[in-house]
Amino acid sequence: MSAIQFSSRAAVAPKISLKKSSKVSVRTGVRAQAVAARRTNKGERNIPPYKKGEIRSNHPALCVRFLAAGVSADAIQDSINSIRFLAIDAINKSNSGHPGLPMGCAPMAYVLYREAMNHNPKDFTWPNRDRFVLSAGHGCMLQYSLMHLTGYPSVTHDDLKNFRQWDSMTPGHPENFVTDGIEVTTGPLGMGFCNAVGLALCEKHLAARFNKPDATLVDHYTYSIMGDGCNMEGMSGEAASLAGHWGLGKLIVFYDDNKISIDGHTDISFTEDVSARYDAYGWHTQHVVDGNTDIDAIRKAIEAAKKDPRPSLIKVSTLIGYGSPNKADTHDVHGAPLGKDETEATRKNLNWKYGEFEIPEAVQKAMDCSAKGAELQAEWKKVESAYASKYPEDYAEYQSITTGKLPAGWADSLPSFTPEDKGVATRIHSQTALNALGGAIPGFVGGSADLAPSNMTLMKQFGDFQKDTPAERNIRYGVREHGMAAIANGIALYAPGFISYCATFFIFSDYCRSAMRVAALSGAGTIYVMTHDSIGVGEDGPTHQPIEHLASYRAMPGMLMMRPADGNETMGAYKIAVEGAANKRPTTLALSRQVVPNLAGTTKEGVAKGAYVVQGEAAGKPVDCVLMGTGTELELACIAGEKLAAEGKKVRVVSMPCWELFEEQGDAYRESLIPSDCKCRVSIEAASTFGWAKYAVKSIGRDGFGASAPAPTIYKEFGITADAMVAAAKSLM
Amino acid sequence: MSAIQFSSRAAVAPKISLKKSSKVSVRTGVRAQAVAARRTNKGERNIPPYKKGEIRSNHPALCVRFLAAGVSADAIQDSINSIRFLAIDAINKSNSGHPGLPMGCAPMAYVLYREAMNHNPKDFTWPNRDRFVLSAGHGCMLQYSLMHLTGYPSVTHDDLKNFRQWDSMTPGHPENFVTDGIEVTTGPLGMGFCNAVGLALCEKHLAARFNKPDATLVDHYTYSIMGDGCNMEGMSGEAASLAGHWGLGKLIVFYDDNKISIDGHTDISFTEDVSARYDAYGWHTQHVVDGNTDIDAIRKAIEAAKKDPRPSLIKVSTLIGYGSPNKADTHDVHGAPLGKDETEATRKNLNWKYGEFEIPEAVQKAMDCSAKGAELQAEWKKVESAYASKYPEDYAEYQSITTGKLPAGWADSLPSFTPEDKGVATRIHSQTALNALGGAIPGFVGGSADLAPSNMTLMKQFGDFQKDTPAERNIRYGVREHGMAAIANGIALYAPGFISYCATFFIFSDYCRSAMRVAALSGAGTIYVMTHDSIGVGEDGPTHQPIEHLASYRAMPGMLMMRPADGNETMGAYKIAVEGAANKRPTTLALSRQVVPNLAGTTKEGVAKGAYVVQGEAAGKPVDCVLMGTGTELELACIAGEKLAAEGKKVRVVSMPCWELFEEQGDAYRESLIPSDCKCRVSIEAASTFGWAKYAVKSIGRDGFGASAPAPTIYKEFGITADAMVAAAKSLM
Repeated sequence: MSAIQFSSRAAVAPKISLKKSSKVSVRTGVRAQAVAARRTNKGERNIPPYKKGEIRSNHPALCVRFLAAGVSADAIQDSINSIRFLAIDAINKSNSGHPGLPMGCAPMAYVLYREAMNHNPKDFTWPNRDRFVLSAGHGCMLQYSLMHLTGYPSVTHDDLKNFRQWDSMTPGHPENFVTDGIEVTTGPLGMGFCNAVGLALCEKHLAARFNKPDATLVDHYTYSIMGDGCNMEGMSGEAASLAGHWGLGKLIVFYDDNKISIDGHTDISFTEDVSARYDAYGWHTQHVVDGNTDIDAIRKAIEAAKKDPRPSLIKVSTLIGYGSPNKADTHDVHGAPLGKDETEATRKNLNWKYGEFEIPEAVQKAMDCSAKGAELQAEWKKVESAYASKYPEDYAEYQSITTGKLPAGWADSLPSFTPEDKGVATRIHSQTALNALGGAIPGFVGGSADLAPSNMTLMKQFGDFQKDTPAERNIRYGVREHGMAAIANGIALYAPGFISYCATFFIFSDYCRSAMRVAALSGAGTIYVMTHDSIGVGEDGPTHQPIEHLASYRAMPGMLMMRPADGNETMGAYKIAVEGAANKRPTTLALSRQVVPNLAGTTKEGVAKGAYVVQGEAAGKPVDCVLMGTGTELELACIAGEKLAAEGKKVRVVSMPCWELFEEQGDAYRESLIPSDCKCRVSIEAASTFGWAKYAVKSIGRDGFGASAPAPTIYKEFGITADAMVAAAKSLM
Repeated sequence: MSAIQFSSRAAVAPKISLKKSSKVSVRTGVRAQAVAARRTNKGERNIPPYKKGEIRSNHPALCVRFLAAGVSADAIQDSINSIRFLAIDAINKSNSGHPGLPMGCAPMAYVLYREAMNHNPKDFTWPNRDRFVLSAGHGCMLQYSLMHLTGYPSVTHDDLKNFRQWDSMTPGHPENFVTDGIEVTTGPLGMGFCNAVGLALCEKHLAARFNKPDATLVDHYTYSIMGDGCNMEGMSGEAASLAGHWGLGKLIVFYDDNKISIDGHTDISFTEDVSARYDAYGWHTQHVVDGNTDIDAIRKAIEAAKKDPRPSLIKVSTLIGYGSPNKADTHDVHGAPLGKDETEATRKNLNWKYGEFEIPEAVQKAMDCSAKGAELQAEWKKVESAYASKYPEDYAEYQSITTGKLPAGWADSLPSFTPEDKGVATRIHSQTALNALGGAIPGFVGGSADLAPSNMTLMKQFGDFQKDTPAERNIRYGVREHGMAAIANGIALYAPGFISYCATFFIFSDYCRSAMRVAALSGAGTIYVMTHDSIGVGEDGPTHQPIEHLASYRAMPGMLMMRPADGNETMGAYKIAVEGAANKRPTTLALSRQVVPNLAGTTKEGVAKGAYVVQGEAAGKPVDCVLMGTGTELELACIAGEKLAAEGKKVRVVSMPCWELFEEQGDAYRESLIPSDCKCRVSIEAASTFGWAKYAVKSIGRDGFGASAPAPTIYKEFGITADAMVAAAKSLM
């Protein structure tokens, strides 16, 4: 048994001086290369004993079939170093960035982008492409280098030189809304991994739903690279547990185990057995002992991962900043440019003969995946064509999901209400909407974080998406709000026709917040169904009663914060939410636990304007008083309005379910509803009054925490009543 | 080998009809009871084979020494049923609550509160008490029943009848700020577990720091009960990983494995091997197969847990709603009252002869821990006395921590600055403050989520709190923001003199948010050190640039949101934060990545008022224009003020580091600074303008997301400049 790995824990990167041998087969080439490397690294070998799950390239042969056959060992090694040096050079030039990860992960990333992945750089929208997510998003120069080298037009040679500059295509973390070919936006650690679980879920779902014995329309892998940071984050644990539970066998995740984080060596805070943890989640785990040079081991690990029905974690031990003689294996190389001197030293150490941003011609040729990608896509197109002819109805559904074109008349499924209709909680109206939309829209999928019977989020016509029933559309997320929200975002970004919703109590949106923000930033049009939206929760008390949450989402860019008042408004809110999803804008819906009546003046169309008149003086007419309310308190505003009108006051009651949409209507509309010269403008909302000063002179709400008691008692004790609104209005008139 | 366990997974709770045998020893009594139970449950036995880590009461004897010796088996069984029925009755009466957990967990909870825990119900502040955290906070009637039965004056018999009512001592989830003897506030799942890790950290720290070979001042356990929900939450995984890493051997957690959550059976979303996961974290794991009746197995598991140096997870298989013939083992019993009929059926099934809220006299006697607790505390007092005499200096430090009395002159350690002092980022000023306070305050402890060199949070005079160096005071949280914040809250609530800080980038406060809110609610005076507080982050881009965060925390009740502008303001902010911590109010500090000058008009005293004049017309003087700014943009407001003043305008520049404190000053002070009749009020802040309408007529800020580019470019492109402020002011004059 010849050992060809090097310890990835050597304090200094091995000084490699490879003997070049051209035109050898991949395996021979890699072997030759490894042997050469071994020859120059005798003193640094420190090969630990084999452990369960370890993959080394001299394992008894696993069949390796990758598309790099025909590429010389030289070209491979130069390709890997090209990835490294493009990252080094770009980061030096911008004087900002994270070279450590690209340098360490270049070999696994090379194998992924050049060999393992089926992708067409010239058509990043190909539905059956393999997905890749760099969860350790700070290492984005790795991905930009790869994309440039494999032929993505979105990352030109100039773009690499423009790294992290204003208006560039190569921002400081991967941003799907900037760079074509980036699947999701990463950077907040753990987030990308969860997105990847969502992407893999979609593949499993679509494959089960659409593939036929004679036509495999959907069949691809989802790959991700995560680091120590991603694995420390709890959210990745949540998603990993779900991926294991769901049996997402085509999810293959590389864990870049470089043992360095910003605080230094992971020994100081991260000594758990990560692979054993993934074993416990039901994953297939492997360990590539030397991720710095053992390319064949990486290939074999991917092969083994594909053969196993479980999701796969491939721990790859690497040196952060591999190749840098003085900074490798230290946190100095994590988040700062190498600098001129160390770059020069690294160049010598890796025997790199090329200049700044220079890409050897052989590498350009060897790395370009355009032809391979076009061929793969063309083959798939044939399958698609045959499928379209043979299964036109299924294909129409599939197309709705992959193109995002919603079926005609989908919004007609949402009912209207009159005051004669029985009042129910808006979460019950929400259930009606979800069930209607589930029937009308092929890509409508979602679920709750273990609160389905409280959030009212089950689509009754469908079963559960589970390991053995993946064609179903109700997702059971368990009590994992953060993971849920990020998985839901992954689903939303998989294909434009997936309308992905997820649900919990509004208070626990706090757990999801980071993922909700990334949705707003990255154009994941997820619908966040948040019920139990105020002190109306009652007995569960202040730990369960949102106060500042409406304000906090109104302040969040890109997020529609909707708080509908009754049946019509809930339906209007869902119409906006689905349109928003199609337009890459997420919506947060705040829905009540408690019953509300269907009010006389509410309309779906009104909701679309964000605010509108529901009672009293029409827009533009002179008024003594404007009363504003949202959600469950709109009823109180209406009662207050009636009382004041009975006293001869000219009153306008304005419903304000969505401030963002209202602001988009422009000043004239705003003035017609809430004239700034009207001294008597009063708002009511069972929540923090923070932000209302923009519209109201006096605001009735609750700026402290809630309390545990029956809801009507709390409303009374906190003075959130129609009478209080009347009194406030009178004090201003 | 006689088997005496019952399958906890039987679809219906076993119908128990115990033969009473009084005055037997504990073990004999329990055995007799189990045998009797077995006799009536032949058909339902389904004893799985032994697995690693399982604890059953007929294991080869582990020594069991608990304080219940002398309590009859009858009294034990009646005590356990008292716990169950008090919960059932209180929840029925309030028509709201969660009976399932109290019914299932009553046996383990009995063993904990009555036998295992050292606590004095008559002095809940005894520093060396064992801590208990009900992480599954919805089951709070379990704890209220236990507290009443063991003798806590804070939970009277009437309080039980007043469960979940307005102003009661028994709110819907455990609230430390309402009910004396509750350690922390739980309900948001996973949170309590993390708090418990913080409590256990404190014990380990204090023991290492203060115990002497001849005086053990600190020596107690931290217990917790968590459920499936807590274990699904990622935050508990974060804290568990840290607890394993830190070797918190005196943390003993019961995992109530009842396999039921709100969505139904956990099979639908939670099939991982939880114990194996904890093994991977480095915990000691055990399994009590029958937590419904096998009390001795619970006792033995605690004994074994105490003997193991690792933190312990004791998985206890129970039936949710144990005893309810029709609802046990279903989610129907999770969160709804049993109701009259099912209560009656349960009464019969458990052979419970007592009336509603009735507590048998024997149970009252058997359960009261007052005498035992007083005795334990008296013994400890002797140790304390001797310690105080022999080690007066150590004792003074210890007392500062346990009483919360800060050393005289602590605030003098915070320096002042003049414009001549070199400008540095406020995160650097923060480092100065943290190091000064670490030296001045014995209970000052904290750390960062793997960003110590960026957050600048290391106290240079101390080492790291680690498994083998637990007396040190820098905490390395790893990339685990949510777990960190909740652990930090646990530290803050362990003793009033712990001033607990934690740190990350401001953007990642989104990950911590739920814990930060619970801190504000529950009086955990944690200091959240949030650096990189705006688009000033620069190249890392919009995933790393806070926008809405200031507004979102200004809207949060009970939280001081501070954004200091320079050295003086940072010191002033820390003074407020430490005083806030002592007064049970948490503070969030937003600190800059980028350099700021020390401004001429800033003072620590000004910061204490929340807003104050730093330049131009004094408070109360007539003005043409009020310019407001915070943090790094205060400098821009000062420059704009100078420009306008140079044109002959009467300008007041107001620094507004803390809106909450400003609001507390009252209307007169507010009007003296920002007169509402002044038409020219302009604010500048590199953040969302949301909320500024309360003070400003025009606001310069950024309501969209940030961008990846050098920071000065972003400021310029977004128009956050002194010139823009001048233009805005002129447009209003």
